[in-house]
Amino acid sequence: MLKLYDYWRSSAAYRVRIGLNLKGVDYESIPINILPGTDEQMREPYRSKNPQMRVPAVETEQGLLTQSLAILVWLDQTYPEPRLTPADPWLGAQVRAFALTIGCDIHPLNNTSVLTRIKLEFSADDDHVGEWYRHWIKLGFNALEHQAEQRAETKYAFGDEPSLADIMLVPQMANARRFKTDLSPFPRLVAWDETARKHSAFIKAAPESQKDAVKA
Amino acid sequence: MLKLYDYWRSSAAYRVRIGLNLKGVDYESIPINILPGTDEQMREPYRSKNPQMRVPAVETEQGLLTQSLAILVWLDQTYPEPRLTPADPWLGAQVRAFALTIGCDIHPLNNTSVLTRIKLEFSADDDHVGEWYRHWIKLGFNALEHQAEQRAETKYAFGDEPSLADIMLVPQMANARRFKTDLSPFPRLVAWDETARKHSAFIKAAPESQKDAVKA
Repeated sequence: MLKLYDYWRSSAAYRVRIGLNLKGVDYESIPINILPGTDEQMREPYRSKNPQMRVPAVETEQGLLTQSLAILVWLDQTYPEPRLTPADPWLGAQVRAFALTIGCDIHPLNNTSVLTRIKLEFSADDDHVGEWYRHWIKLGFNALEHQAEQRAETKYAFGDEPSLADIMLVPQMANARRFKTDLSPFPRLVAWDETARKHSAFIKAAPESQKDAVKA
Repeated sequence: MLKLYDYWRSSAAYRVRIGLNLKGVDYESIPINILPGTDEQMREPYRSKNPQMRVPAVETEQGLLTQSLAILVWLDQTYPEPRLTPADPWLGAQVRAFALTIGCDIHPLNNTSVLTRIKLEFSADDDHVGEWYRHWIKLGFNALEHQAEQRAETKYAFGDEPSLADIMLVPQMANARRFKTDLSPFPRLVAWDETARKHSAFIKAAPESQKDAVKA
């Protein structure tokens, strides 16, 4: 069985959980506590296993696979149905561009390691960290909402079924809510997120449903 | 003919230029000056064209395509030879994980917009910005070098021909040198970069060879 090195509140791990659930792939979740101060990802035995010292990673029969987006493409090739990205190159590119706007332009700036660094390097307080966090979400979401307005309304981000775009959107939306981002300028994104969160694959993948979740 | 919205020193645009050259695709470069203070990417007419207000973007017969990695996958599907990623899902995943370590874990933290934000928000001076910049390069390169040590030595990052991994590595290496990063801990990465920079597709794509390049 696949092993997922996981953390309930890691949005990159959340993406992979959704992907695994959409594909109906059974997996074993192995929580790695990345909470600053605990930092299991930087300690043995995980450190030797994954020198990137990040979650998620997937242990397959062939070895360890890192990077949530690479894992999702591998999943999509290894378990072809249902498809996470359209086969058509142009449509696929639109879905990937959406996914990468979150994966490259928003999420890396909001990562725990970055927030820790900002606090350490620039003595940023919580208000400042929150502003930083929301700034990158707003920039990225603005672009995605604007692009969405050019397309016909759809149930999910790209059609009647969830795709890689929704897999990326839902965890980022959870982060946005956690950091109290005003989502009123993004009605399309909000609607897609609400639809997706009612889907069983997304429900099962939600942070609060994970065995290592810490109740507030 | 394809139009590439380009900037000589944008490493994301540099990736796309390499990809286009490797595929032998003719394109027209349209420079968008993203230098802070000029910020053509945030002004009309580009802003309406690409609400992400970033370069690169590619104007195709079907419309505009954004996000360098989405553009490269689209290129690879539209012009199948030579392949930028191995067809085998497992090998492909290794190449993509390498590419995404640069594309998600290093480059987004070193982007001009982020450096500008750090200066603005946290009054970071040039030394501080340099330290920030090198910190993320070292973390990411450490992981890549460590993973490289587990594999047999190869001419390029993944074999005898350049792949998406080299397309991502070379521009990031150029940035690393520009910010005076000590590269001695990364001998494999340095060797791959040196090999790739002798390849005509990479030479033609180099920042200093572009028509909008500003000579030092």
